[in-house]
Amino acid sequence: MEAQAAACGGVTAPRGFKAAGVHAGLKPNRPDMALIYSEAPAAAAGVFTSNRVKAAPVRLDARKLRAGRAQAVIINSGNANACTGRQGAKDAARMADLTAAALRINPALVCVCSTGTIGRPLPMDVIAAGITRAAGDLDAAHGARAARAIMTTDTRPKEAVLRLEIDGQTVTLGGMAKGSGMISPNMATMLGFITTDAAVEPRALRAALRQAVRDSFNCITVDGDQSTNDTVICLANGRAGNRLLQPGHRCWRAFCRALSQLALELALMIVKDGEGATKLVTVTVRNAASRSAALCVARAVAQSPLVKTSWFGADPNWGRVICAIGYAGVPVRPEKIDIAYNGLPAVSRGQSAGLSESDLHAVIRRPEFSVEIDLHQGRAVGTIYTCDYSDQYIAINADYMT
Amino acid sequence: MEAQAAACGGVTAPRGFKAAGVHAGLKPNRPDMALIYSEAPAAAAGVFTSNRVKAAPVRLDARKLRAGRAQAVIINSGNANACTGRQGAKDAARMADLTAAALRINPALVCVCSTGTIGRPLPMDVIAAGITRAAGDLDAAHGARAARAIMTTDTRPKEAVLRLEIDGQTVTLGGMAKGSGMISPNMATMLGFITTDAAVEPRALRAALRQAVRDSFNCITVDGDQSTNDTVICLANGRAGNRLLQPGHRCWRAFCRALSQLALELALMIVKDGEGATKLVTVTVRNAASRSAALCVARAVAQSPLVKTSWFGADPNWGRVICAIGYAGVPVRPEKIDIAYNGLPAVSRGQSAGLSESDLHAVIRRPEFSVEIDLHQGRAVGTIYTCDYSDQYIAINADYMT
Repeated sequence: MEAQAAACGGVTAPRGFKAAGVHAGLKPNRPDMALIYSEAPAAAAGVFTSNRVKAAPVRLDARKLRAGRAQAVIINSGNANACTGRQGAKDAARMADLTAAALRINPALVCVCSTGTIGRPLPMDVIAAGITRAAGDLDAAHGARAARAIMTTDTRPKEAVLRLEIDGQTVTLGGMAKGSGMISPNMATMLGFITTDAAVEPRALRAALRQAVRDSFNCITVDGDQSTNDTVICLANGRAGNRLLQPGHRCWRAFCRALSQLALELALMIVKDGEGATKLVTVTVRNAASRSAALCVARAVAQSPLVKTSWFGADPNWGRVICAIGYAGVPVRPEKIDIAYNGLPAVSRGQSAGLSESDLHAVIRRPEFSVEIDLHQGRAVGTIYTCDYSDQYIAINADYMT
Repeated sequence: MEAQAAACGGVTAPRGFKAAGVHAGLKPNRPDMALIYSEAPAAAAGVFTSNRVKAAPVRLDARKLRAGRAQAVIINSGNANACTGRQGAKDAARMADLTAAALRINPALVCVCSTGTIGRPLPMDVIAAGITRAAGDLDAAHGARAARAIMTTDTRPKEAVLRLEIDGQTVTLGGMAKGSGMISPNMATMLGFITTDAAVEPRALRAALRQAVRDSFNCITVDGDQSTNDTVICLANGRAGNRLLQPGHRCWRAFCRALSQLALELALMIVKDGEGATKLVTVTVRNAASRSAALCVARAVAQSPLVKTSWFGADPNWGRVICAIGYAGVPVRPEKIDIAYNGLPAVSRGQSAGLSESDLHAVIRRPEFSVEIDLHQGRAVGTIYTCDYSDQYIAINADYMT
């Protein structure tokens, strides 16, 4: 029952799913619209940004997914359809209706996602033509094309697949995601799509997705900016033929673990592809008074521009780490704090552990390493995945729009 | 009674103050120790970092200033004496004692400030020699030398002077500050020193200083990092001969205003000299439900790496501004938000106000501009002063220590 990673395929790896990725014309010379389609209506769940400013498609999908069912998701990159008022809401609804008409399915079963620049009206003629093209491009082999079409500042597509056995049947989970900047705990500009051929009870699917997102997409940070459009949608179409998964099914926890694992794989791909990132850093806080305190301290370290720039320079400057711990807003006791890098103790009880700078430097120059912080205050643990800040982050973001 | 800005002089502009700035050897080829000395014991107050990790001199000064009196402040740059345990506490106390001996004054009247790298023991032989040299260098004309000696990544010294008339006497306030990175609301690595020849009751001085710091040093941000060593110390030696200033004195409010104005001048110098900064941006939030809500929203905008990098690129991307407003943690109503740049409306009721990108670009390319956010929720106002993020910020911080 343990999940196995599969080589490729993304959202079309599970049975009964097709996808498309096409160039509609929102961006010059790059695919900018994607479509995910299940041959049968699927149990569906979504998790959305907690930003108070929510894009039109986010509000639309949250409403639609209350019913727990969906059959298709239409996605555009290049325009976020955020801060676009009533017209934006109409445009999002029209995107769903046009997609439903092209696919000859119920419009209530079509979700919509947008990502890109905020505050510009959607060019609906371009979108309409793109929907027609995407519907014609649908294919069980086009998962990778869809993964390319949802990219914005991403440098590479992000796909993952897992398989596990349930009730004697092989169940497949596939996923794709986009996101590179405006990435912060609680889902910044990132979109994630997970498909599975498992049969799952809709409310159980929602709970499982929420848990999976909590420990993956909500535990990454690139720049601390949280977007207006974050969305993770999961479709489960039941084509694997298993008994309906829900709490009580002996494989329920295995399915939840697989879903969480897939979500974490996609989330880590986002951090590794963080704008300008050269390193993946795992910040773990142990023996905190609570999980939220542990995450709060880990986030302060993972988001500190001074810490992140020092990682870029492979600078063993643990002073910046303990400084960030101190301003995290958690009542830490400085004289109890231990800090280690990949297990090498740098700080012991709030002071230098005596390790040479060159030993620390050897760890911090690696492309992946961990920072382990022990607060010696309780038993709770929290982990945040982050990256460094390089000169490329500035270059990418100083001329995104102009 | 209105305060007048004076040309120069810094901490030695008020009567009865001397200062020194010398090279002790903590940093190669640059002055690294400063001394401020009042000819008579002065009323004194301090405001310190709220970081849970407090450097040894911060803890020492907080204790000493409870008595409300001081006569000298010895300062070193190049080493923060933070996370240095019991030895650090001993070293800070010894710095005060050596200074008192060199000046032949009571050790209880000497405060100590350190700034620089965290976690390294102070080289006390270097410090001791520096104290001897600084005591010999004391002069009423050496304010500017002291201002140079406290710099770390600062590119220029920061000094200001104000004069006002009280009880028929001219009262002078002088100040110097350092700070460039690790700057955030609630005083990150910044040191500020304000001297005045006014006679001020010590408890009243403390209240006035707290208010002045609240609206100046605590309202600036460069990178959101809050340091272990932040300190603002004010000495009032009474040499102007005015009646003791305190609430009830008819010039009390004028004095408080002058103190606040001087503190704000110094704070803005820090933002303008922010690491790699090319722009000074004033973010004001109006009609918020409370002052803390207004400041919370202003800080989210002022600290957003995506917003700051877009300013560097003169990119009129207000979508990033409204996105930051949305995740500030304040229950805003997106459809009510207005955003203007130097009075030019960019966003009206949560949507584009229709202004052309080139008009906005013309504002954002300036070296100083303001972002005005109206939440239409209440009557409170809050302002945060910040700068942009340039490639130089990364360059400066990626190899600070190594």
